[in-house]
Amino acid sequence: MRIVVDAMGSDAFPRPDVEGAVQAARLYGVEITLVGDEKVVRPALAACDPGSLPIAVMHAPEMLTMHDKGLSLALKAKRREPKTSMALGIDLVKKREAVAFVTAGNTGAAATTAYFRLGTLPGVERPALCPVFPTHTGTCLVLDVGANPDCKPEHLLQFAIMGHVYAEKVRGVRGPRIGLLSNGEEPGKGNLLIRETYPLLAASGLNFIGNVEGKELFAGAADVVVTDGFSGNILLKGAEAVGALILDIVREKIQAASPFVKIGGLLVRPTLRSLRRMLDPSEEGAAPLLGVDGLVFIGHGRSDALAMQNAVRVAKLAAEAGVLESVRAEIGGRLARAPAAALGS
Amino acid sequence: MRIVVDAMGSDAFPRPDVEGAVQAARLYGVEITLVGDEKVVRPALAACDPGSLPIAVMHAPEMLTMHDKGLSLALKAKRREPKTSMALGIDLVKKREAVAFVTAGNTGAAATTAYFRLGTLPGVERPALCPVFPTHTGTCLVLDVGANPDCKPEHLLQFAIMGHVYAEKVRGVRGPRIGLLSNGEEPGKGNLLIRETYPLLAASGLNFIGNVEGKELFAGAADVVVTDGFSGNILLKGAEAVGALILDIVREKIQAASPFVKIGGLLVRPTLRSLRRMLDPSEEGAAPLLGVDGLVFIGHGRSDALAMQNAVRVAKLAAEAGVLESVRAEIGGRLARAPAAALGS
Repeated sequence: MRIVVDAMGSDAFPRPDVEGAVQAARLYGVEITLVGDEKVVRPALAACDPGSLPIAVMHAPEMLTMHDKGLSLALKAKRREPKTSMALGIDLVKKREAVAFVTAGNTGAAATTAYFRLGTLPGVERPALCPVFPTHTGTCLVLDVGANPDCKPEHLLQFAIMGHVYAEKVRGVRGPRIGLLSNGEEPGKGNLLIRETYPLLAASGLNFIGNVEGKELFAGAADVVVTDGFSGNILLKGAEAVGALILDIVREKIQAASPFVKIGGLLVRPTLRSLRRMLDPSEEGAAPLLGVDGLVFIGHGRSDALAMQNAVRVAKLAAEAGVLESVRAEIGGRLARAPAAALGS
Repeated sequence: MRIVVDAMGSDAFPRPDVEGAVQAARLYGVEITLVGDEKVVRPALAACDPGSLPIAVMHAPEMLTMHDKGLSLALKAKRREPKTSMALGIDLVKKREAVAFVTAGNTGAAATTAYFRLGTLPGVERPALCPVFPTHTGTCLVLDVGANPDCKPEHLLQFAIMGHVYAEKVRGVRGPRIGLLSNGEEPGKGNLLIRETYPLLAASGLNFIGNVEGKELFAGAADVVVTDGFSGNILLKGAEAVGALILDIVREKIQAASPFVKIGGLLVRPTLRSLRRMLDPSEEGAAPLLGVDGLVFIGHGRSDALAMQNAVRVAKLAAEAGVLESVRAEIGGRLARAPAAALGS
């Protein structure tokens, strides 16, 4: 089982990317291909003392950065002769020489490259990025959070089916509860997209629990929450920002306070640190890009070696669980049973 | 200066509503009309020992609740002979017998009643609910957060002008920085609505700083953030939920921890409590519904007496600052200068 890791992805590449991949090879018994500029990847690999671990290096003369977007990105992504680390890595998945591709690079660049090189699974019009949110009782998958700012109801139905499969196969949730992100719980609440999506989900045969708001999501009322990529992104970034704000202010207030409070701050520091970890995306490693014809995981630019190691672990889990085949089967089966209106036809 | 307070609004009505109004009359020298069911309002008022404070009671035989929505709500809101506390109270503002109406009732019911009874200011197509968000450096107004789940670019331009006026007049910010909520900072990011709104704001003559994400918003990079009511509501409720989640988990973790950590928890408790207050909507009292032809403030259902008192204080501030007249003038002036395309014509 070979997993391709983009060595040029994270903000601090190649070190976290390479270190995490080496750790994953050591711990999880996977074969790794590091793809990137040989001149920087080989020394970073050597520094990790990989011994006889099954780690190959594939040279990529170019890399995609935060500056790649729009048409020029699309053209690079579609190029017949791949040159970027993302395109070369994803092509290994396409040729079935590897089971998954993992990157901590530019999300848009990775999604675009994956979309053009792998295509989508039959019945899926748009791939969706599906991160794990922490909740009071565990975790919740939210999709899409950014790949598709403008969605149609049938896209959200496809997201729901893909989220259902991923929750069952990888997160181990039986009959996952599917919620629809809205501005009110009652049916009929929401913008036009949500109001049109609601009946599709209600008729889908999935365990649809109706509209959910932030309160229910973070309380753990749903296992999967479906949303368009714009709203999902607003939710994700808002939640990250509030979490960081609160923990920063707690720290600042404690530092500026009386000696007694400062001592209290020292005593609760491990608690606050564990909370920061809980809110930290690196615990879950990376989010799957569901709906493309191959397993692709996209992590935060801030990913460290542990995050990359976790990303490889989750990618392995998804491959072993046959996520791709299950999404293919469920999308085919459930859409075939859905009313024609659900297909937007 | 008379302010009408809905005595039937908050979840625990009439006590917090009446107590807050009495406190406001005592502290800020405003005249108050409490509107609601006399049989419950008069005893609640007597219990507050109002002495000779200028507080009137206006009987309303009906009240709107969380169950009022859709067509039946619209019909109640439009009724020629007002019966609900919201309609009767808002009519006092319409007849210029009071300068503002304050309620902690059902947001949709209040917005609908205000819309139908007061109408919108010339040039404003949709009123917008405009709460104050806490940020790292102060506060930020966000509008709309729920009145309009589906918006057009020209609505967002109108929101920006109204937010600009409110920030200047009531929040005391000179040349407020206006941001557009999006899923990325660069121009060109966003869904169709955002991409079409961007050039309108850029040409508006306002201090438009471009797209902002949650990170910038909560860091304090903008004084006003403009968004459609659906996305704004997702942001608001997500932020509230994450804030509550984090503080709950901190408390639980400390309670479950070693005696040392527990002692630390006791020492930092004032810090955490002050943070909870900072995140608590009652500090700002209520959010203005901007764009209707009258001052209307809508508070959280959880509002306590302090929140109601603050709501009356902010309503008085807005009346003294001439917010209504300024919005009327700015909307007229700026839209007249805007390119025709900005008007959606």
